[in-house]
Amino acid sequence: MDLECASQETVKQGLLARGWPPIKGFSKHVKTKVFEFFSHLIKLGQDDPRRVVHSLKAGLALTLVSLFYYYQPLYKSFGVSAMWAVITVVVVFEFSVGATLGKGVNRGLATLLAGGLAVGAHQLANLSGRIGEPIVLGFFVFLQAAVSTFVRFCPQIKARYDYGLLIFILTFSLISISGFRDDEVLELVHKRLLTVLIGGSTCVIISVLLFPVWAGQDLHNLIASNMEKLGIFLEGTHLHYQLLKKQCMYLVTGSGICLQGLEMNTLKCQRMESPKKIDPSCRVIKVFLTPKPTKMPWWANFARWEPRHGRFQFRHPWRQYLKIGALTRKCAYRIESLNGHLYADIQAKREIRSKIQETCTTISMESGKALKELSMAIKTMVQPFAADIHIENSKSSVKNLDTLLKSGLWDDETDLLEVVPVATVASLLIDVVTCTAEIAESVNELATMLKFEVVEPTVSPEKTETGQPKIGIS
Amino acid sequence: MDLECASQETVKQGLLARGWPPIKGFSKHVKTKVFEFFSHLIKLGQDDPRRVVHSLKAGLALTLVSLFYYYQPLYKSFGVSAMWAVITVVVVFEFSVGATLGKGVNRGLATLLAGGLAVGAHQLANLSGRIGEPIVLGFFVFLQAAVSTFVRFCPQIKARYDYGLLIFILTFSLISISGFRDDEVLELVHKRLLTVLIGGSTCVIISVLLFPVWAGQDLHNLIASNMEKLGIFLEGTHLHYQLLKKQCMYLVTGSGICLQGLEMNTLKCQRMESPKKIDPSCRVIKVFLTPKPTKMPWWANFARWEPRHGRFQFRHPWRQYLKIGALTRKCAYRIESLNGHLYADIQAKREIRSKIQETCTTISMESGKALKELSMAIKTMVQPFAADIHIENSKSSVKNLDTLLKSGLWDDETDLLEVVPVATVASLLIDVVTCTAEIAESVNELATMLKFEVVEPTVSPEKTETGQPKIGIS
Repeated sequence: MDLECASQETVKQGLLARGWPPIKGFSKHVKTKVFEFFSHLIKLGQDDPRRVVHSLKAGLALTLVSLFYYYQPLYKSFGVSAMWAVITVVVVFEFSVGATLGKGVNRGLATLLAGGLAVGAHQLANLSGRIGEPIVLGFFVFLQAAVSTFVRFCPQIKARYDYGLLIFILTFSLISISGFRDDEVLELVHKRLLTVLIGGSTCVIISVLLFPVWAGQDLHNLIASNMEKLGIFLEGTHLHYQLLKKQCMYLVTGSGICLQGLEMNTLKCQRMESPKKIDPSCRVIKVFLTPKPTKMPWWANFARWEPRHGRFQFRHPWRQYLKIGALTRKCAYRIESLNGHLYADIQAKREIRSKIQETCTTISMESGKALKELSMAIKTMVQPFAADIHIENSKSSVKNLDTLLKSGLWDDETDLLEVVPVATVASLLIDVVTCTAEIAESVNELATMLKFEVVEPTVSPEKTETGQPKIGIS
Repeated sequence: MDLECASQETVKQGLLARGWPPIKGFSKHVKTKVFEFFSHLIKLGQDDPRRVVHSLKAGLALTLVSLFYYYQPLYKSFGVSAMWAVITVVVVFEFSVGATLGKGVNRGLATLLAGGLAVGAHQLANLSGRIGEPIVLGFFVFLQAAVSTFVRFCPQIKARYDYGLLIFILTFSLISISGFRDDEVLELVHKRLLTVLIGGSTCVIISVLLFPVWAGQDLHNLIASNMEKLGIFLEGTHLHYQLLKKQCMYLVTGSGICLQGLEMNTLKCQRMESPKKIDPSCRVIKVFLTPKPTKMPWWANFARWEPRHGRFQFRHPWRQYLKIGALTRKCAYRIESLNGHLYADIQAKREIRSKIQETCTTISMESGKALKELSMAIKTMVQPFAADIHIENSKSSVKNLDTLLKSGLWDDETDLLEVVPVATVASLLIDVVTCTAEIAESVNELATMLKFEVVEPTVSPEKTETGQPKIGIS
């Protein structure tokens, strides 16, 4: 054995001495992977420091509940049942208050209900003698598991009570089966319910009192910031359009940031070496096309469990938020489509494009401003009057565009092929205005539901470059 | 007490006799709700009978595992630890084999790892004396809970090992805390691991052997059927377009089904009373815009756990499926946009529209056929040669359209305003062709990855109505 070990050692040393490439390569690969993993973790913490706080809160809750084992008087009352408190904390403690509350309430109610029913099942099974008892119990367990599992497929129930049904199956099975070996079923139910309540309330209290994370607040912010990003993008689009027209190679030389509008708002965008290399679908739009918005329905579900906090009441209209979110997403797809055609458009003759250029710019600017105002209205919970004015401006510009086209501004020699891309851009821009108006309408509905504060907008006499009056909330 | 009861009874009877509206209304409301709930459940079962089978399987697994309590020899070996087997079955048993396997493997490995570490922590804590022990144990519990909770935020880990980390926290806490009161920690770990393995393997065996539901198969079918629906819609679009042109009021009088192409394929579509009332965004497209596709990443995650089955190998390229799914969705949004403009288009003069009518119809038909062939290629796992031919046809039609526009087919008196909607439809149709070509490319990639069967398409001499050769797989 020693000899074998020694020889293995010699081989290993020999390999290391010769710097055997596969081993060296492998250890380097592992080092890189580990380094990448840790830097990724650090980035996760930096992106949202609430994650670090949540981890510490989870550790604290678990440590608190484990006192039931360490502290003799507590252990005397509960014994090994204290285990259920520990399990409850591990399973129930979630990132947001809503999720924690939802799981806690589900677990508590399901334990109570299933415990009660299991005691009933135990009593019934007791009547059927020592041989009949396991058969009756087995039948009950099978029946409730099958029925509850099936009910979990119901989307409305799955959304709010899925965890409760799981705990119902678990508790009913455990209590009714345990009843076969242990006649003190009532005490079992009592202890389990009490420990679950202790574990659950520990989670809820820590979750609410120590740096609470409200799912509703997150949903509210996400909806507003998505809308703002679209607004910034639309405002930037006209700049981009003009830049392309003038064949500017760089907006910012050197580091090469995409759009001025975006850069000012510190949004990251793709590096552009030259206009030809620009990816038509900029990252800002991609934000909406990634699966992130799919989290919204979850957040809305969690938010529905949350009590009154800050500016949010208990029965806050979270569904309206989802409606606004869906419309914003639709608008993002429209803008993406428009964005693609903007690049086809630059192939059109400058004279043709320049004829509708200004009106298109105004429409894009006004829609962008409207979206930004709507976002601000949601953020500050103020009536979106300013946005309505911008919407009206963009609609009247659409009418101007219409008149411009009807007035036969084009001469008879215009090549129709060159008109097509410009006309397409105009049509798609009109689509974006329609979509923006839809968003404004749903935000107005939200404002009515929540009785947003009324702050009259002030129209300053100062004019913008497009000749439209500048509008701002005083 | 009796008097109180009697008086309450009288009041109730009096109210019922007078037919007190609120009570009557309430009981009717409850009856309707209960009836609705049950008919909804029946519909859930009819929509996918595998749900009923799954519920019965879950009941069976739970009943089987509960034998550990009923059968004396088994109870002797495990005692109350058999509870862990029951819990494992309730928590691990999922609808698809992949999800069950994933949770089972996660639970098994996490229990093994956390059990080992907890024994180590228990030994270390033992060295620090009776007073130091709870402090050391508490520190370990806090540390591992905080670190594991934080690691769960990492998206890559969350996707595959979230449940494992949860069980890791649970097992480590339970075993290390229990060690404070019970010195036979090793036996505790051994029993827990064994019962978890028994519960987990019961789930996996039942899940695989009794009417297995493969997440991979579901993902495969969903991708193919979504593509097929789009294809049918595109093929139908030209019919719709022609119908609108001819001002046909009803396609099918009476029940009023939307498009002929759709009706033939028994897809439900919105009832249309008259063309003016048609909702531009038909339900077929809405299918893609609802949150259902968000399930795809989940299914792909589950599918990755599944062993070789049918035509699917263990390391099946599920990511490529997600890529195809995302492209299909993008295409659906493009078609929705096109669909909206189709209705604006009918306002344009018939003469103008009719000039590009045939080419547009060919493009739409060929793209639709290409999508249907691609869907068929995925379904049958055969190289999509036929689709490539349709894509080429649609691309050459796009060139025709280009030539048509360039040839100055329009006379000088044409009003540009009337050209714009037609031109927009043409541009959007070209977008759809680009998107279809992208889908075809990614399906071809999949075909190469999976070495799809090679079946040469036969080009029959028969011509279609649009003058293109009819193509079918022999």
